[in-house]
Amino acid sequence: MTNRTASSQEQNLASEWFLTLRDQICTAFEDLEYEFDPYKPGKFDFHPWKHRHEGGGVSGVMKGKVFEKVGVNISTVHGHFSENFAKKIPGTEKSSRYWASGISVVAHMQNPHVPAIHMNTRFIITGQSWFGGGVDLTPVFPIPQDTEDFHSALKKACHRYDTQCYEKFKKWCDDYFYLPHRKEPRGVGGIFYDHLHSSNWKADFSFTQDVGKTFLKIFPDIVRRRMLTPWTLDEREAQLKKRGRYVEFNLLYDRGTLFGLETGGNTEAILMSLPPLAKW
Amino acid sequence: MTNRTASSQEQNLASEWFLTLRDQICTAFEDLEYEFDPYKPGKFDFHPWKHRHEGGGVSGVMKGKVFEKVGVNISTVHGHFSENFAKKIPGTEKSSRYWASGISVVAHMQNPHVPAIHMNTRFIITGQSWFGGGVDLTPVFPIPQDTEDFHSALKKACHRYDTQCYEKFKKWCDDYFYLPHRKEPRGVGGIFYDHLHSSNWKADFSFTQDVGKTFLKIFPDIVRRRMLTPWTLDEREAQLKKRGRYVEFNLLYDRGTLFGLETGGNTEAILMSLPPLAKW
Repeated sequence: MTNRTASSQEQNLASEWFLTLRDQICTAFEDLEYEFDPYKPGKFDFHPWKHRHEGGGVSGVMKGKVFEKVGVNISTVHGHFSENFAKKIPGTEKSSRYWASGISVVAHMQNPHVPAIHMNTRFIITGQSWFGGGVDLTPVFPIPQDTEDFHSALKKACHRYDTQCYEKFKKWCDDYFYLPHRKEPRGVGGIFYDHLHSSNWKADFSFTQDVGKTFLKIFPDIVRRRMLTPWTLDEREAQLKKRGRYVEFNLLYDRGTLFGLETGGNTEAILMSLPPLAKW
Repeated sequence: MTNRTASSQEQNLASEWFLTLRDQICTAFEDLEYEFDPYKPGKFDFHPWKHRHEGGGVSGVMKGKVFEKVGVNISTVHGHFSENFAKKIPGTEKSSRYWASGISVVAHMQNPHVPAIHMNTRFIITGQSWFGGGVDLTPVFPIPQDTEDFHSALKKACHRYDTQCYEKFKKWCDDYFYLPHRKEPRGVGGIFYDHLHSSNWKADFSFTQDVGKTFLKIFPDIVRRRMLTPWTLDEREAQLKKRGRYVEFNLLYDRGTLFGLETGGNTEAILMSLPPLAKW
């Protein structure tokens, strides 16, 4: 299946949305830090970087008291895929040129009762154009209410786009965030989608915006519920071991990580997903 | 280049050597723990495991006061490679059968002034048979005397086998233990060799034994020199970050790790190379 490529107006709308969402997420996360400690709240540091080819991005990192380490990256890059790499990407039959814009968030939390989270959405153009993204939750000690509310929020976002897609995107997430060598899922799932290009660009874009807005609402809610729960050293130990699995997944299997490293992206920005501290 | 396959006597000699060497290494490492703290010295725990196909191994782990975590694994396994995997291995044109025996050691040290080390030697049989292996040193703060003595000991072992091979095996090690995404070597190098099959099996085997014996002599020497050096929290921090790079190398690039996971080896034994604690 082929699809039309995007207009420059669409490119601008997408990359501006990722920037807006980045600002909203960083503000919401800094608000949580302020609620936890108004005297010395964590703050984001932002580092702009240039891509090997053209374009670049801004990686934002906060090391706070609620967020042990959270990275919020945006980037808009373009260039040519290497010949081998192009084979894996749709729409590269006639040309290896690409344009990609997106946002990526990974949060590792201080309190072992607050789950880690990942959210990423992107708009990609080759000879075709499409949206992709996902959100998944990784608690050390899953709490049914949190898991349920998280899935329920994502389900509603999916339903606003297409009543059929939630089950598909949920399964895609379960299949993707799985560690075969451990026979373990990474966490409690969420949604994952790729090559999303219906005949209605506006609807696809709205859905991608909705995924970001849903994340922006549900995750701070869950953090607020759990960030003051007392924890023990044994629970901290379990959290650090769970993070070891996170590292294993990201370095062994995660396509975004391998894509970034293979295409000569910014190493620090790509590996900001790795936890501040992990145990094996 | 093809070579003859091995006799069962050679298989026994090789696998018995790896067992003998394992015992000697564990004794030498426990001696270091005893010198450091004779009242509560670290001790190895041994866990036997079975391979998916046939054979198995024993993984030994010690969490001590000199060795924060050291794994010493031996295994002798046989079976068939998957079709895709066989393509990457010499001597599999007529049959995908293999037999492999080896020893693998990875040590992560408590004191940031004691380098981490890796040693692995193996004997592999497909339609061909060969030895492979290597030793490499990863200090956080390289000390010229240690680096020099380490390379000098390996150079002597290489010279006893073939006066031409040291430079080649040293370069192979430098090329192999390199993190392209960081533009950094893993450590200060050592030697690495693979597909070693001259017309003289005894000489090849003696060399492989010599690599093990050299490791057994030089590494405890270096540990003794540095294990009582005082260290600061900043030095500990630098050590934990250096270990993050070790994790990146092993999960992104190490052929042994990927080989093990792809052929359904014992996950805990394969990933014993990961450090007990790492930072990013």
